[in-house]
Amino acid sequence: MDLLVTYDVETVTPQGQRRLRKVAKICEAYGHRVQKSVFEVVCRETDKVRMVAALQEAIDPTQDSIRIYRLPTHALDDVEHLGKPRLIDPRGALVI
Amino acid sequence: MDLLVTYDVETVTPQGQRRLRKVAKICEAYGHRVQKSVFEVVCRETDKVRMVAALQEAIDPTQDSIRIYRLPTHALDDVEHLGKPRLIDPRGALVI
Repeated sequence: MDLLVTYDVETVTPQGQRRLRKVAKICEAYGHRVQKSVFEVVCRETDKVRMVAALQEAIDPTQDSIRIYRLPTHALDDVEHLGKPRLIDPRGALVI
Repeated sequence: MDLLVTYDVETVTPQGQRRLRKVAKICEAYGHRVQKSVFEVVCRETDKVRMVAALQEAIDPTQDSIRIYRLPTHALDDVEHLGKPRLIDPRGALVI
Protein backbone atom coordinates (compact mmCIF):
# COMPACT_ATOMS: atom_id res chain seq x y z
CA MET A 1 0.00 0.00 0.00
CA ASP A 2 1.04 3.60 -0.58
CA LEU A 3 0.89 5.88 2.44
CA LEU A 4 1.75 9.46 3.14
CA VAL A 5 2.84 10.23 6.69
CA THR A 6 2.96 13.85 7.88
CA TYR A 7 3.86 15.04 11.35
CA ASP A 8 4.05 18.04 13.63
CA VAL A 9 6.09 17.48 16.78
CA GLU A 10 6.28 20.25 19.35
CA THR A 11 10.01 20.96 19.73
CA VAL A 12 10.20 23.79 22.25
CA THR A 13 11.63 21.44 24.88
CA PRO A 14 14.61 19.03 24.70
CA GLN A 15 12.09 16.22 25.22
CA GLY A 16 10.19 17.44 22.17
CA GLN A 17 13.39 17.53 20.11
CA ARG A 18 14.06 13.93 21.19
CA ARG A 19 10.54 12.92 20.16
CA LEU A 20 11.04 14.60 16.77
CA ARG A 21 14.26 12.65 16.17
CA LYS A 22 12.51 9.43 17.20
CA VAL A 23 9.53 10.02 14.92
CA ALA A 24 11.83 10.84 11.99
CA LYS A 25 13.89 7.70 12.65
CA ILE A 26 10.78 5.49 12.66
CA CYS A 27 9.54 7.04 9.41
CA GLU A 28 12.99 6.63 7.82
CA ALA A 29 12.81 2.92 8.56
CA TYR A 30 9.60 2.58 6.55
CA GLY A 31 9.68 5.22 3.84
CA HIS A 32 11.34 8.05 1.95
CA ARG A 33 11.54 11.57 3.30
CA VAL A 34 10.25 14.03 0.69
CA GLN A 35 10.02 17.09 2.93
CA LYS A 36 11.13 17.94 6.46
CA SER A 37 8.10 16.28 8.05
CA VAL A 38 6.58 14.36 5.14
CA PHE A 39 7.36 10.74 4.29
CA GLU A 40 6.14 8.57 1.45
CA VAL A 41 5.79 4.97 2.54
CA VAL A 42 5.25 1.91 0.36
CA CYS A 43 4.67 -1.07 2.63
CA ARG A 44 2.55 -4.06 3.53
CA GLU A 45 -0.32 -3.96 6.03
CA THR A 46 1.79 -5.67 8.71
CA ASP A 47 4.55 -3.07 8.37
CA LYS A 48 1.99 -0.32 8.62
CA VAL A 49 0.64 -1.77 11.86
CA ARG A 50 4.19 -1.90 13.26
CA MET A 51 4.96 1.65 12.13
CA VAL A 52 1.77 3.06 13.64
CA ALA A 53 2.44 1.29 16.94
CA ALA A 54 5.99 2.69 17.06
CA LEU A 55 4.80 6.21 16.23
CA GLN A 56 2.03 5.98 18.81
CA GLU A 57 4.66 5.04 21.38
CA ALA A 58 7.07 7.82 20.34
CA ILE A 59 4.82 10.88 20.48
CA ASP A 60 3.28 12.91 23.25
CA PRO A 61 -0.37 12.69 22.21
CA THR A 62 -1.20 15.94 23.98
CA GLN A 63 1.35 17.92 21.97
CA ASP A 64 2.25 16.12 18.74
CA SER A 65 0.22 15.17 15.71
CA ILE A 66 0.73 12.53 13.04
CA ARG A 67 -1.51 12.01 10.03
CA ILE A 68 -1.48 8.94 7.81
CA TYR A 69 -3.12 9.17 4.40
CA ARG A 70 -3.80 5.98 2.49
CA LEU A 71 -3.26 6.66 -1.20
CA PRO A 72 -4.42 4.67 -4.21
CA THR A 73 -1.81 2.29 -5.61
CA HIS A 74 0.87 4.14 -7.56
CA ALA A 75 -0.44 7.57 -6.52
CA LEU A 76 3.09 8.27 -5.30
CA ASP A 77 4.37 7.94 -8.85
CA ASP A 78 2.25 10.90 -9.94
CA VAL A 79 2.73 13.74 -7.46
CA GLU A 80 2.76 17.34 -8.61
CA HIS A 81 5.92 19.01 -7.37
CA LEU A 82 6.79 22.72 -7.40
CA GLY A 83 10.24 24.12 -6.69
CA LYS A 84 13.37 22.47 -5.38
CA PRO A 85 13.31 18.93 -6.66
CA ARG A 86 13.91 15.98 -4.46
CA LEU A 87 13.93 13.11 -6.87
CA ILE A 88 13.19 9.86 -5.20
CA ASP A 89 11.77 6.58 -6.31
CA PRO A 90 9.03 5.86 -3.74
CA ARG A 91 9.50 2.17 -4.45
CA GLY A 92 13.31 2.33 -4.26
CA ALA A 93 15.54 0.81 -1.58
CA LEU A 94 15.50 2.48 1.82
CA VAL A 95 18.65 4.10 3.15
CA ILE A 96 18.69 3.05 6.80
CA MET B 1 -11.29 16.88 -6.10
CA ASP B 2 -9.47 16.13 -2.84
CA LEU B 3 -5.89 17.34 -2.64
CA LEU B 4 -3.21 17.33 -0.03
CA VAL B 5 -0.70 20.16 -0.21
CA THR B 6 2.53 19.95 1.77
CA TYR B 7 5.34 22.49 1.75
CA ASP B 8 8.84 23.22 2.94
CA VAL B 9 9.86 26.86 2.65
CA GLU B 10 13.40 27.84 3.59
CA THR B 11 12.98 30.48 6.32
CA VAL B 12 16.53 31.41 7.29
CA THR B 13 16.15 34.82 5.64
CA PRO B 14 13.43 37.49 6.07
CA GLN B 15 12.59 36.92 2.39
CA GLY B 16 12.04 33.24 3.18
CA GLN B 17 9.79 34.09 6.10
CA ARG B 18 7.78 36.33 3.77
CA ARG B 19 7.49 33.52 1.22
CA LEU B 20 6.32 31.17 3.98
CA ARG B 21 3.57 33.58 5.02
CA LYS B 22 2.54 34.01 1.39
CA VAL B 23 2.39 30.26 0.73
CA ALA B 24 0.35 29.72 3.92
CA LYS B 25 -2.05 32.50 2.94
CA ILE B 26 -2.61 31.00 -0.51
CA CYS B 27 -3.25 27.57 0.97
CA GLU B 28 -5.64 29.05 3.55
CA ALA B 29 -7.70 30.50 0.72
CA TYR B 30 -8.23 27.05 -0.78
CA GLY B 31 -8.16 24.55 2.06
CA HIS B 32 -7.94 23.64 5.72
CA ARG B 33 -4.67 23.62 7.63
CA VAL B 34 -4.25 20.30 9.42
CA GLN B 35 -0.60 20.67 10.39
CA LYS B 36 1.95 23.51 10.27
CA SER B 37 2.75 22.91 6.62
CA VAL B 38 0.00 20.53 5.52
CA PHE B 39 -3.30 21.60 3.99
CA GLU B 40 -6.29 19.54 2.90
CA VAL B 41 -7.98 21.07 -0.11
CA VAL B 42 -11.36 20.18 -1.61
CA CYS B 43 -11.78 22.15 -4.84
CA ARG B 44 -12.62 22.16 -8.51
CA GLU B 45 -10.04 21.75 -11.27
CA THR B 46 -10.15 25.48 -12.09
CA ASP B 47 -9.42 26.40 -8.45
CA LYS B 48 -6.54 23.97 -8.42
CA VAL B 49 -5.04 25.57 -11.52
CA ARG B 50 -5.31 29.00 -9.86
CA MET B 51 -3.82 27.74 -6.60
CA VAL B 52 -0.87 26.08 -8.34
CA ALA B 53 -0.17 29.24 -10.35
CA ALA B 54 -0.23 31.37 -7.19
CA LEU B 55 2.06 28.95 -5.33
CA GLN B 56 4.43 28.76 -8.28
CA GLU B 57 4.63 32.55 -8.21
CA ALA B 58 5.15 32.74 -4.42
CA ILE B 59 8.06 30.35 -3.93
CA ASP B 60 11.74 30.48 -4.68
CA PRO B 61 12.04 27.32 -6.79
CA THR B 62 15.71 26.93 -5.90
CA GLN B 63 15.00 26.80 -2.16
CA ASP B 64 11.37 25.86 -1.48
CA SER B 65 9.37 22.75 -2.23
CA ILE B 66 5.65 22.16 -2.57
CA ARG B 67 4.04 18.80 -3.18
CA ILE B 68 0.45 18.27 -4.29
CA TYR B 69 -1.09 14.83 -3.87
CA ARG B 70 -4.34 14.07 -5.63
CA LEU B 71 -6.42 11.84 -3.39
CA PRO B 72 -9.38 9.65 -4.27
CA THR B 73 -12.76 11.26 -3.59
CA HIS B 74 -13.56 11.29 0.12
CA ALA B 75 -10.09 10.05 1.11
CA LEU B 76 -9.91 13.10 3.38
CA ASP B 77 -12.83 11.76 5.39
CA ASP B 78 -10.82 8.71 6.38
CA VAL B 79 -7.38 9.81 7.58
CA GLU B 80 -5.63 8.00 10.40
CA HIS B 81 -4.65 10.51 13.05
CA LEU B 82 -2.35 9.99 16.05
CA GLY B 83 -1.98 12.45 18.90
CA LYS B 84 -3.25 15.95 19.35
CA PRO B 85 -6.52 16.14 17.48
CA ARG B 86 -7.34 18.89 15.08
CA LEU B 87 -10.90 18.14 14.18
CA ILE B 88 -11.86 19.70 10.91
CA ASP B 89 -14.42 18.96 8.29
CA PRO B 90 -12.39 18.95 5.03
CA ARG B 91 -15.58 19.92 3.20
CA GLY B 92 -16.51 22.64 5.70
CA ALA B 93 -16.54 26.39 5.11
CA LEU B 94 -13.17 28.08 4.84
CA VAL B 95 -12.14 30.66 7.41
CA ILE B 96 -10.53 33.38 5.34
